[in-house]
Amino acid sequence: MECNVPTDIVFSFSGLALRGGVKGDHSDGWGLALYDGKAVRTFLEPTACAHSPLATYVRQNPIKTLLAIAHVRKRTRGEISLANTHPFVRELWGRTLTFAHNGTVKNVRRMPLGRFTPIGNTDSEYAFCAMLDKLERAFPRYPRQRRELWEAVAAVGTELGSSGTFNFLLGDGEHLFARCATKLCYIIRKAPFDKATLADDDLTVDFSEVTTPNDRVAIVATTPLTRNETWTHGSPGQLWVFRAGELRATL
Amino acid sequence: MECNVPTDIVFSFSGLALRGGVKGDHSDGWGLALYDGKAVRTFLEPTACAHSPLATYVRQNPIKTLLAIAHVRKRTRGEISLANTHPFVRELWGRTLTFAHNGTVKNVRRMPLGRFTPIGNTDSEYAFCAMLDKLERAFPRYPRQRRELWEAVAAVGTELGSSGTFNFLLGDGEHLFARCATKLCYIIRKAPFDKATLADDDLTVDFSEVTTPNDRVAIVATTPLTRNETWTHGSPGQLWVFRAGELRATL
Repeated sequence: MECNVPTDIVFSFSGLALRGGVKGDHSDGWGLALYDGKAVRTFLEPTACAHSPLATYVRQNPIKTLLAIAHVRKRTRGEISLANTHPFVRELWGRTLTFAHNGTVKNVRRMPLGRFTPIGNTDSEYAFCAMLDKLERAFPRYPRQRRELWEAVAAVGTELGSSGTFNFLLGDGEHLFARCATKLCYIIRKAPFDKATLADDDLTVDFSEVTTPNDRVAIVATTPLTRNETWTHGSPGQLWVFRAGELRATL
Repeated sequence: MECNVPTDIVFSFSGLALRGGVKGDHSDGWGLALYDGKAVRTFLEPTACAHSPLATYVRQNPIKTLLAIAHVRKRTRGEISLANTHPFVRELWGRTLTFAHNGTVKNVRRMPLGRFTPIGNTDSEYAFCAMLDKLERAFPRYPRQRRELWEAVAAVGTELGSSGTFNFLLGDGEHLFARCATKLCYIIRKAPFDKATLADDDLTVDFSEVTTPNDRVAIVATTPLTRNETWTHGSPGQLWVFRAGELRATL
């Protein structure tokens, strides 16, 4: 989720949580990262999101944010553990960078990682470290020309994506980067707001009751989280760049 | 808290939480880091711990761990924000390093930070980054000879502590380092276990009911958390190294 006004992620997270053990088999861990400026607070558990008291707490005590990344894990490489639970976070350029991956990337253990060392043993965290190393080499500081950063993320996505399935979400406190390798879709909610119903539950929200006319909220997911809205599907290899609730670039 | 068997921190955290806005004025943020191997889960809020629903959740849903670091903040340098909330975390040597500080360190913004960049603007996070840079320069990899690491942490503590008040807790997933600049104390609970009552509340636990004879649990705090146990007080400049619930070194 990426927005122009602080928004809580409860509705979307409620749908995602069900895919972590009830309406889907991604039950090997879950994580939620909520930005506050360049810092992030994370909630992580190596257990099924759908049955997690902590996930219930997060839904019952909403925290508003401009940028959030959530993930439910279906284990492929690396055991079930906290260290292997997405999203992964590292500091780069004095910002917290946050990464969640869907898919498997091969040969990633042969890639240079520079100063970034995986804590767990997933291909996903290796790929994140390799990506950060490439970005840091390209930009010793956070680039003033933001488009240069967008293009670099796209190029790194293409490079790492050439040896596997590299659907990912990457946040830097200012942008949400979303890469489609096989499956990814987004929707931008803006005025006039309407009702939406989850795809995986009968929960409905009338967004016109909880928004102001200038609000813009972008939501990205592997498959549509709602059943009565029109989501835009990505093509393999596409990178979307969201900022302030707008799709700023498709690369 | 540092132990030889997974232990929950509920009793000690309940006492500490009261110092975050009820029995103490450290009400400008709180954080709790719970290790699981080399990874850590954190709970952070830029609000008073004593009044936090999340802190209540953590007490009501105990998570067992071998190593935990908790902090309640009284703001001196840097505004009240998530980015300025202790404990701070960074990856080094493929481990999560976790740092909490009590005091103020001067001139820290002039110190070399290497590859570590503060996300917030506290002197504490600067000092942590400076410390990590010095440790990484000394040990490109996690040192096999652990005593070399202990001595390096002590030396960095002395160096940074020479220009301010540098009480700190540092965790690396294997050790708890605790430095006394002005005030710090510890207790090691082991068999025969007995009852303990919080200093700041009437809560009592009979540890003999919740432990086995081989358990060892070290607790470090600024001032004693219990009223009926004998805590050992540190001297200015001392660094304690705890591992598996034992005080392994005083440097």
